[in-house]
Amino acid sequence: MKNVRMCIIGGGSRMWAIEFMRDLTMHDDITGTLVLYDRDYDAAKRNVGVADQCFKVNHWEGHVKVVAEKEIGKALDGCNLVIISIEPGRTECRWGDLVLPEQYGILETVGDTTGPGGIMRARRSIPLFTGFAKEIKAHCPDAWVINYTNPMTLCTAALYREWPGIKALGCCHEVFHLENFIADKVAQWFKVPRPDRRDIEVDITGVNHFTWITKAAWNGNNLLPRLMELAHDPKAFPDETKIAMERIEGKKWFDCDHLVALALLRDFGALGAAGDRHLSEFIPWILRDEKELWRYGVVRTPYEWRLSERDRKLHKVFTDEELKSKPTDEEGVDIMRSLMGDRTLYTNMNRPNVGQVSFLPQGRIIETMNYLRKDEIVPSVASDPPLAVRQMISHVSDVQQMTLDAICEHDDELLFRAFVNDPLVTIPLSQAHELFEKMLDACKLEY
Amino acid sequence: MKNVRMCIIGGGSRMWAIEFMRDLTMHDDITGTLVLYDRDYDAAKRNVGVADQCFKVNHWEGHVKVVAEKEIGKALDGCNLVIISIEPGRTECRWGDLVLPEQYGILETVGDTTGPGGIMRARRSIPLFTGFAKEIKAHCPDAWVINYTNPMTLCTAALYREWPGIKALGCCHEVFHLENFIADKVAQWFKVPRPDRRDIEVDITGVNHFTWITKAAWNGNNLLPRLMELAHDPKAFPDETKIAMERIEGKKWFDCDHLVALALLRDFGALGAAGDRHLSEFIPWILRDEKELWRYGVVRTPYEWRLSERDRKLHKVFTDEELKSKPTDEEGVDIMRSLMGDRTLYTNMNRPNVGQVSFLPQGRIIETMNYLRKDEIVPSVASDPPLAVRQMISHVSDVQQMTLDAICEHDDELLFRAFVNDPLVTIPLSQAHELFEKMLDACKLEY
Amino acid sequence: MKNVRMCIIGGGSRMWAIEFMRDLTMHDDITGTLVLYDRDYDAAKRNVGVADQCFKVNHWEGHVKVVAEKEIGKALDGCNLVIISIEPGRTECRWGDLVLPEQYGILETVGDTTGPGGIMRARRSIPLFTGFAKEIKAHCPDAWVINYTNPMTLCTAALYREWPGIKALGCCHEVFHLENFIADKVAQWFKVPRPDRRDIEVDITGVNHFTWITKAAWNGNNLLPRLMELAHDPKAFPDETKIAMERIEGKKWFDCDHLVALALLRDFGALGAAGDRHLSEFIPWILRDEKELWRYGVVRTPYEWRLSERDRKLHKVFTDEELKSKPTDEEGVDIMRSLMGDRTLYTNMNRPNVGQVSFLPQGRIIETMNYLRKDEIVPSVASDPPLAVRQMISHVSDVQQMTLDAICEHDDELLFRAFVNDPLVTIPLSQAHELFEKMLDACKLEY
Amino acid sequence: MKNVRMCIIGGGSRMWAIEFMRDLTMHDDITGTLVLYDRDYDAAKRNVGVADQCFKVNHWEGHVKVVAEKEIGKALDGCNLVIISIEPGRTECRWGDLVLPEQYGILETVGDTTGPGGIMRARRSIPLFTGFAKEIKAHCPDAWVINYTNPMTLCTAALYREWPGIKALGCCHEVFHLENFIADKVAQWFKVPRPDRRDIEVDITGVNHFTWITKAAWNGNNLLPRLMELAHDPKAFPDETKIAMERIEGKKWFDCDHLVALALLRDFGALGAAGDRHLSEFIPWILRDEKELWRYGVVRTPYEWRLSERDRKLHKVFTDEELKSKPTDEEGVDIMRSLMGDRTLYTNMNRPNVGQVSFLPQGRIIETMNYLRKDEIVPSVASDPPLAVRQMISHVSDVQQMTLDAICEHDDELLFRAFVNDPLVTIPLSQAHELFEKMLDACKLEY
Repeated sequence: MKNVRMCIIGGGSRMWAIEFMRDLTMHDDITGTLVLYDRDYDAAKRNVGVADQCFKVNHWEGHVKVVAEKEIGKALDGCNLVIISIEPGRTECRWGDLVLPEQYGILETVGDTTGPGGIMRARRSIPLFTGFAKEIKAHCPDAWVINYTNPMTLCTAALYREWPGIKALGCCHEVFHLENFIADKVAQWFKVPRPDRRDIEVDITGVNHFTWITKAAWNGNNLLPRLMELAHDPKAFPDETKIAMERIEGKKWFDCDHLVALALLRDFGALGAAGDRHLSEFIPWILRDEKELWRYGVVRTPYEWRLSERDRKLHKVFTDEELKSKPTDEEGVDIMRSLMGDRTLYTNMNRPNVGQVSFLPQGRIIETMNYLRKDEIVPSVASDPPLAVRQMISHVSDVQQMTLDAICEHDDELLFRAFVNDPLVTIPLSQAHELFEKMLDACKLEY
Repeated sequence: MKNVRMCIIGGGSRMWAIEFMRDLTMHDDITGTLVLYDRDYDAAKRNVGVADQCFKVNHWEGHVKVVAEKEIGKALDGCNLVIISIEPGRTECRWGDLVLPEQYGILETVGDTTGPGGIMRARRSIPLFTGFAKEIKAHCPDAWVINYTNPMTLCTAALYREWPGIKALGCCHEVFHLENFIADKVAQWFKVPRPDRRDIEVDITGVNHFTWITKAAWNGNNLLPRLMELAHDPKAFPDETKIAMERIEGKKWFDCDHLVALALLRDFGALGAAGDRHLSEFIPWILRDEKELWRYGVVRTPYEWRLSERDRKLHKVFTDEELKSKPTDEEGVDIMRSLMGDRTLYTNMNRPNVGQVSFLPQGRIIETMNYLRKDEIVPSVASDPPLAVRQMISHVSDVQQMTLDAICEHDDELLFRAFVNDPLVTIPLSQAHELFEKMLDACKLEY
Repeated sequence: MKNVRMCIIGGGSRMWAIEFMRDLTMHDDITGTLVLYDRDYDAAKRNVGVADQCFKVNHWEGHVKVVAEKEIGKALDGCNLVIISIEPGRTECRWGDLVLPEQYGILETVGDTTGPGGIMRARRSIPLFTGFAKEIKAHCPDAWVINYTNPMTLCTAALYREWPGIKALGCCHEVFHLENFIADKVAQWFKVPRPDRRDIEVDITGVNHFTWITKAAWNGNNLLPRLMELAHDPKAFPDETKIAMERIEGKKWFDCDHLVALALLRDFGALGAAGDRHLSEFIPWILRDEKELWRYGVVRTPYEWRLSERDRKLHKVFTDEELKSKPTDEEGVDIMRSLMGDRTLYTNMNRPNVGQVSFLPQGRIIETMNYLRKDEIVPSVASDPPLAVRQMISHVSDVQQMTLDAICEHDDELLFRAFVNDPLVTIPLSQAHELFEKMLDACKLEY
Repeated sequence: MKNVRMCIIGGGSRMWAIEFMRDLTMHDDITGTLVLYDRDYDAAKRNVGVADQCFKVNHWEGHVKVVAEKEIGKALDGCNLVIISIEPGRTECRWGDLVLPEQYGILETVGDTTGPGGIMRARRSIPLFTGFAKEIKAHCPDAWVINYTNPMTLCTAALYREWPGIKALGCCHEVFHLENFIADKVAQWFKVPRPDRRDIEVDITGVNHFTWITKAAWNGNNLLPRLMELAHDPKAFPDETKIAMERIEGKKWFDCDHLVALALLRDFGALGAAGDRHLSEFIPWILRDEKELWRYGVVRTPYEWRLSERDRKLHKVFTDEELKSKPTDEEGVDIMRSLMGDRTLYTNMNRPNVGQVSFLPQGRIIETMNYLRKDEIVPSVASDPPLAVRQMISHVSDVQQMTLDAICEHDDELLFRAFVNDPLVTIPLSQAHELFEKMLDACKLEY
């Protein structure tokens, strides 16, 4: 792990970039250079300052040199690792993603992955990722590329569509939430100290944010029967409307108790493997009526909060405490270490289908388990979920494929096919046409 | 075509059975026996009388002997051809199929094929068809079996699930409507006398009532570009609300102008190939709001009318005029003639997938073009429609597979998976559970 | 069938071109132009004279104007139909195809389709067909193209590889031989006048010259059990060594009694559907030892005879008798009529796999049954033969794909992979390398 | 690893059983019971004595109790692990396997896996394995089952065919030989101490003994280009006839220099991954002529030696030295430890295809890489080899499937299809029939 050259595209970010730097300081043996590239060069420069502060707090000075770079080509030159974590377009773009659909009765909880909002966000993101793939091919073709940007599946797919030779993967922590949920249950069921989520052995399948756990074991104990029993216990599904109200009050947009994940297990035979706010967006039965959503304790992140949060972060001064290194669930640095040959890792990632998922075409970006070792990611064959789940995943993956093709080929007629086939779009056809045109206009304004 | 032994299961029916007999009289060279079997033996006997009247009107006495038979085994013994056209359960069963979903905001136009109503109707039909397959295997294993009963796909699938060796096909006239629609356009475009629908050369794919035309030609002219142009002309989509009102007024439940079929071509790239009232039930965007439906000139057949119509037919006395033979679009007799080796025929039918439809698993019942000759049906490879259409058909076919498996395995938990995944079920999950239970109760009452 | 413009590439041929013209004269309603194009312009001109003689003999003057054309582009301009029937390279090229392998113990009966000879012949043909595809695309993109040239599969594949939009088919009469063989048996079994081969209803699958009959019926009688019984009767396999000797003596290279076809039915469960001299070249058990071949009454066409036959045909003057029209088994004109909309036809052809053959990848050129109507060829789904047959066909098709790719990509290392994997190449690896190099040299000399 | 109950079926074996016991003694933390079951009860009892000697030599007394058991049901009761390593039929059976084919010019080097000998050995083994599967299902359904018996693929397949729920895997060390071969090259290329074979990161695909290495890396260095360069160096293929003679002289039947493996890389683009004596039996170009075989330094194990070796082993008294524990390449105990949750392991195994191998049907037993952890084997997706290799593997796997079906269904006509389609059977068809009948007779005699 000596002399590693890393680049963060979106290096001016106030969240992922800083978390990554903080995670780095947990590792004494890493040295090299970290290049921060951002369309907003000033933001990247600001983060150089945060890096200095962070390394000092953690007594890690001298390990890694952090620099901001104006040109992407120079930033990428000779890199071993590239991390992409960007916001495609200004936060104001999200008005079209979130508020317009609402006017037509289409609710979204997040709106960055799927649904009308996700599709329009993809329309802004994909051209950027096409560009990144070109630059990476030209400047650091051997680098491993970790994408954190949403829509995860489509951004990663855009990289591969532009350059099939890219060594890219999409990294997301949503599955970890369910591993933690199961770890809590294990502590309770077996009366043992809560195991680390890494000790919950799962098999997963699906697409990012619509992943499903098909196997779960701990210490050789098959946990599926216990989870299934739980899912069939009506007491496991209290009406959480009151809790939802408190979450709204407290701006706890990201909290949930995984009742949607559990309802999916009950009704479809596999456990949802992402936060409920994400899962809800892939199916038409939760978001149709906000009251239904609240029953599960899930709340929608408002557009206004996104704006104010952006502003808050922009001017945020990090305290030393915030920058102090501590174990997290994020895996960026672990993945890097594994690919550099330092250890092996068995974890979930978003990668092109080469046979992992039997029921999707080759090439689709899917999220399954992989075995990582030096300079290699070996995909496992994912277990097949029940037919209903296969059908729902296929539906979503097909819509994603149409979205990708439509955007890359500048074909808005095809994009409408994707749009109207999205599971959330159950409004009258004439209204769907109207909304689509409006969102397209909003989308064009912004980029 | 001498000494053919035919049996109609549902031989007491006041519609199909009589139409079939009337069609027979168009063919001078047919002789043999026609056995009418019906759970309601009296109805079958009544139809023997209608047969006498019909044959007399058409000067066809002496050709075919018509008898009613009480036991199904005896009825089937030694048959060359079996026609199945039944009503599964009394018409009152349809209250659960149609009225209950309405109470939860789920509208259906027909409710006998798909959607909550179709699924419950399947739950009543499939055990009957399983029984028919057993009897046919035992009494006339070499007979060709033509099914006309809805849900067409699932009833036919039930025959094959019980006995894969059965020589069965599902026969439906909905595709003909679109061939006629295109024939009208050809007359207009080419300024020629309206061609017979059989001269419109089409390729189709899909499942019954959710079939799609992927190719259309007349006299070597590719018609797709012209149809596509039409579909992109806003004038082709006038607001037909007023027409819909007139149709309701005049009880013209079955009429339509194929605007939904055309909208599917516009939005998805292939022409719908069934009446609009059927097509609408497979997609969530038309029926969500009755006003949207009316804009396309489509109206819903009311439960009350079904009841009164049943009563009307029950006591109906056929006039000689009604029984006079005349050319129709029905193909039952043509199919029989072809399978007896009298001619060849190239037409659409519902058969198990052995490779016709690339994007569905083997064994699924699909509707595509077939070449018929003596004792053989040779399936054509159907052209692939655009991805959006493949996805929609797969969705429906998967739901059908779950329905079939659930009913055959008496697994109502699996049946709920089918139910909630039906494209029409976009209501909140808790309501879906509630409605399902109510429909199940209604369904149990009736059979 | 008025004003058809046809072109024969290889119009100087002394066989196919003339047979095609003779077949034309059977049809009173055809008028138009026939362009003869040949690399040997004089040969084409000579055939214009033969055409005059032929049309006169058959009182068909004035129907079709026959012209020779020097430039291929001009020849193709505006054509509705293109026929390709060429000899790739001079007959002397066949020395390398036939004699060299013999020196290494690899016997071939024909050597134009498969085996070392077929592969080298492909190496000479494929670049020509790539060129034809380009010209057709440029000059008559809507024309139907019928190829008669061997190696049939690879020549047809080369057309599609160069231009996937081409409307080409490969036409071969070998399957007809087996239909005739079965027709003879029907006369014998049912004590009826020998039926026309077109009344034997077959299903076939495979690749050209290695086709297999999986179903056979006559008048509704399933013939497979009778054929299978025949194949299991040792008396059906007399030692035909003496007959073989007589055939050699009489230069009856093309004769056979279909014992190899029948042995394939006995040993693998499907009837071979090409002449035995072709079938034998696809399997390693017949040609390994010439004595084994003779037992089946099959003889090998010698290189010397091919040379002398070429010379004989070159200077041949056709008698009026030879040019008199008469019914033949060739289908070129029937196919043309069907594609022009004059009738329908159900027959075997070589076309790209779009789902006809379940066990081969899409795009491979396969030979199966098709339904022809105006401007359209609708492929049937072919029944699956037993696993052993699927494996043998796959083997051959894979070798063909490697051959095609190798030649188009000028990759002789890949070509060796095809060569050594050919079922006839069972010689020691070191000798295989040696032979391959020698054949490559011989091949290069000639073209 | 406490209180493990293990059973060896074939516990009287003088090789595997004893090696396994010796390997056990390397692990201080294992305790439990080892049951030796053998059709020859006396042999099992003899091995209890060897166990005592072995444990004493290694100061391992008290860890594991070794008992011989007469009834298989009792032997298996409550086992956690079952090892199967048997000889199907007496060694004299091998006369038919090896000597008869030789009389027809079919040479085999081993004759226990594939070719005529392997097929007949399968005919003796498969019924035994069907029986084992039944017993395991009845007595220890949760046990992991490790099979070492050849024909590996077919014996393992027989277990799954009888009971799809079995947790079985086939374990073979042949791939390790190539890992060791590569490790030697690494030492040479990179001038480093020879790495352990476990540090050579490979991807493999295929069926047992006909496995192929598609990827190879060491310390992040892609080794394929270097191996390919080696394979294209004529100096890498000296004529080893003299070495072969020495090997015959010295009875070094198992030795080779991997020239066949390397020739496969040269000619087909992937490195063979088994000893040359195994690889040669799957292709027709090496064994056709014994002189060709010797050029690669490979020799055939004679039938007579097998007899005398059997006798030698039968009466062998093990020296203490021989029973002393030492690190070996065998993985039986490592696999057991991993499945008991003690560690993870990433290694090659023979398992049913669930998607690992894209080009073979689901359910076929294939050999690829797997990730082992507590009570779970997670299969990796194997990289696709070039088309020629896919074709050769498919050929072999199809023959295996036919063999399995034929034997389980007692269908010797189908077995002949497998037999004659085996790549080694390139003799005239009439001789193939003759040989098959003779081998069948010999096979029946023996069991």
